[in-house]
Amino acid sequence: MFEAAENEHLLDEATYDAKLPKLREALLAAQYELKAQGRFPVIVLINGIEGAGKGETVKLLNEWMDPRLIRVETFLQPTAEERQHPPAWRYWQRLPGRGRTGVFFGNWYSQMLHGRVNKELSRVELDAAIGQAERFERMLADEGALILKFWFHLSKPQLKQRLKHLKNDPRLGWKLSPLDWRQAKVYDRFVKEGERVVRRTHHDYAPWHVVPGFDERFRSLTVGTVLLKALQRALANKPRKQRRAAAVVPPPVDGRGVLEAMDLTQRLDKADYEDQLLAEQARLARLLRDKKYRRHALVAAFEGNDAAGKGSAIRRVTGALDPRQYRIVPVAAPSDEELAQPYLWRFWRHIPRQANFTIFDRSWYGRVLVERVEELTPVADWQRAYGEINDFEEQLHDAGIVLAKFWLAIDQDTQLERFRAREETPFKRFKITEDDWRNRDKWDLYSQAVNDMVVQTSTAIAPWTLVEANDKRFARVKVVRTLNEALERAYDKG
Amino acid sequence: MFEAAENEHLLDEATYDAKLPKLREALLAAQYELKAQGRFPVIVLINGIEGAGKGETVKLLNEWMDPRLIRVETFLQPTAEERQHPPAWRYWQRLPGRGRTGVFFGNWYSQMLHGRVNKELSRVELDAAIGQAERFERMLADEGALILKFWFHLSKPQLKQRLKHLKNDPRLGWKLSPLDWRQAKVYDRFVKEGERVVRRTHHDYAPWHVVPGFDERFRSLTVGTVLLKALQRALANKPRKQRRAAAVVPPPVDGRGVLEAMDLTQRLDKADYEDQLLAEQARLARLLRDKKYRRHALVAAFEGNDAAGKGSAIRRVTGALDPRQYRIVPVAAPSDEELAQPYLWRFWRHIPRQANFTIFDRSWYGRVLVERVEELTPVADWQRAYGEINDFEEQLHDAGIVLAKFWLAIDQDTQLERFRAREETPFKRFKITEDDWRNRDKWDLYSQAVNDMVVQTSTAIAPWTLVEANDKRFARVKVVRTLNEALERAYDKG
Repeated sequence: MFEAAENEHLLDEATYDAKLPKLREALLAAQYELKAQGRFPVIVLINGIEGAGKGETVKLLNEWMDPRLIRVETFLQPTAEERQHPPAWRYWQRLPGRGRTGVFFGNWYSQMLHGRVNKELSRVELDAAIGQAERFERMLADEGALILKFWFHLSKPQLKQRLKHLKNDPRLGWKLSPLDWRQAKVYDRFVKEGERVVRRTHHDYAPWHVVPGFDERFRSLTVGTVLLKALQRALANKPRKQRRAAAVVPPPVDGRGVLEAMDLTQRLDKADYEDQLLAEQARLARLLRDKKYRRHALVAAFEGNDAAGKGSAIRRVTGALDPRQYRIVPVAAPSDEELAQPYLWRFWRHIPRQANFTIFDRSWYGRVLVERVEELTPVADWQRAYGEINDFEEQLHDAGIVLAKFWLAIDQDTQLERFRAREETPFKRFKITEDDWRNRDKWDLYSQAVNDMVVQTSTAIAPWTLVEANDKRFARVKVVRTLNEALERAYDKG
Repeated sequence: MFEAAENEHLLDEATYDAKLPKLREALLAAQYELKAQGRFPVIVLINGIEGAGKGETVKLLNEWMDPRLIRVETFLQPTAEERQHPPAWRYWQRLPGRGRTGVFFGNWYSQMLHGRVNKELSRVELDAAIGQAERFERMLADEGALILKFWFHLSKPQLKQRLKHLKNDPRLGWKLSPLDWRQAKVYDRFVKEGERVVRRTHHDYAPWHVVPGFDERFRSLTVGTVLLKALQRALANKPRKQRRAAAVVPPPVDGRGVLEAMDLTQRLDKADYEDQLLAEQARLARLLRDKKYRRHALVAAFEGNDAAGKGSAIRRVTGALDPRQYRIVPVAAPSDEELAQPYLWRFWRHIPRQANFTIFDRSWYGRVLVERVEELTPVADWQRAYGEINDFEEQLHDAGIVLAKFWLAIDQDTQLERFRAREETPFKRFKITEDDWRNRDKWDLYSQAVNDMVVQTSTAIAPWTLVEANDKRFARVKVVRTLNEALERAYDKG
């Protein structure tokens, strides 16, 4: 696949000078149109052989485009803070918003290729990394991103010639590479593995463009032309929405879903409640001081029927903790900045580093609950979310984060009682709105959504805990106990 | 994801008996419609917990449907012959043709899960196997196949109860399992890994259906209903064609493709030719008797311009060999049976086992050459073929098969000369037809197709060899020498 890029392409100055002004003008126009539409971000990945003009091209793009709308992100070895988060976290932090362009220099492909060339990754580990990259890019593309991946290529003799030239280059860019390109073996392995990566990850939604890197003019014009065409095409078309396969578990032929199987009559009397709650709270405080906590983190997500007691359950969780030990993230309507990003971005930004605890009061599941039922989101998007959420949670799990997800369930009668009580108690009146009554009318639709959510996203690594919450005491104890059990399970595994 | 399938679903006999006749009638009708349309095959994968009714369901499907149109394939441990082929070969052999249904009991998912539970596979190896399964199913789906994947589930207590029952079952189906399900750990690991596999491979084009396996009536009705709905939907819709991303290497801004870079003036004089050819032929004969050949196999694919000398080159390859040492597969129009299968099927069937040599006179590249240029195949299909071919060749390579691909290139003047010579020589006249003249008129289109083919499918593990064939002597020596070098490289690696 690289052969064609090894040909001796040379472009003379006159041809280049004749073509360039038009190209730059068109690129600028496309960039402004991108901003005006504000419909999608552009993500440009820069990879390939050292000395093939990666750095020069990045600078050129900055020069050709309006620098306010383009940002170059360089990813070197992860920082200490980055290492305390899931690996993808740092990429999420730097995603360009809709209407903007991000150039990722030293991205996930650089990481996997360096790892492979240095023999830190086995071939199957590389394959696993490829799978992760594919899922990430698929998600970005499904959220509308235009992704361009450039591979700058040189043949081996061309690289040798280039290295000789660069030896006296004061910028020393080639010396910043984590690989020693003067070794013939490095080139061979890099090209062999690179070809495999390019081949595997060359998709319609995120294609590679292999650029002959030897001649600067040829290379620059190629990159500019490819970028322009891709931009123009994307600006002219509406992106095709990918649908997600329907639920994995077919609708039960007897009509009994997971919520119907719950026993909501479970209760705790006051004395038992107080004993058990105190014991569980003390256990939680102890677990969060445990040495093993340093290699983990804790994330709790609370969802539930209106008036099921999420707030009061959260207060019981934090009851025995110091405020420096946790953070509560109430999830409300997204900000402008959040709306300009892929859906999960606003949750990724709140993912705690190691030894930290974040409580989400409502969560990323809004996508498949309220956004689905209220038809705030196209069907294709919320259907897709199940898979994206499973991937997201697996990444948290793989980074050692303990994740607990609670659905606090009450029945319709209990809800009615609580709504009425809220209306009658002046200091609770702010807790009940027209929306609550409207949601109540959609009880069945919400139940269906909850059922599908649990079926699709309750996994061994991130199980849902369905909390019987007609009795608040029972619910609160179950919540704190579940957190403790999850932490202990994680500690047991190391 | 399995929780919902662990509920105690029970279906009473009366409800079952009331629903069944209609379901069976509709299933039969759909099956006949499937045959009448003859548009796509149905592939049903059966997986899940032992004792959850997999075997019973397979028998039931056979009972409900017309057995002439459905075939159950069981894949146990690979046979000796299967082990001498790439792992996917045995699945290719048993694919149902369009209009027919294949039930795969013990498929690629069983293999990877058993391997993982027995700790023969690491987690990243499982991920790599998942990636392979995804690419295979994606290809089948792109070729039109309707794929249904059933996961039969039981909770742990349900399994225990079932095993107690089965202990005295004369059929002993559960004893045929390669796993000892009486061990609690086997269940835990199987479910944990199974969930991961189901989650990762649940796609729109090949969705999973998790079936509660405990109650026979509930289970049977669920499977029947899911199958019926999927069949009806597929019979009513035209499948959506997936497009492949355009070429990895952008069209060169200077217009110089890989063919333009060839030096067609290269020649060999007669004496050199005879010396070198004899030496190379002897070397080939020696290499095919080498002990190391037993762990490899050789596949040579010949493509080229009309009258470029493919036939005579092939004769030089086989010159010093015994006919028992090779097989020549001339690729002509596909048979009816071949047309009913995915495109690559007719090449998979000729892939040699270890220590065998197959020569393809024209090859799977017809898809992106003649079928593209003559517009015999929709654009989406031949564009997709590049990726499918790369995957196919990687599987050959991974199984130790040495693959050489030759493009014999001549220029237009040389072709004209040879065409005229053929017309003038009575015993060669059969070699020149109207088609040849017509193809000649499309020289540029063919050149473009060859260029794209080389750019997209010349890989480190399966490189194209462009053979300068204006001089037949030069071409023949280069072909035999290339084969020898490829074999030696493979032997060196072990």
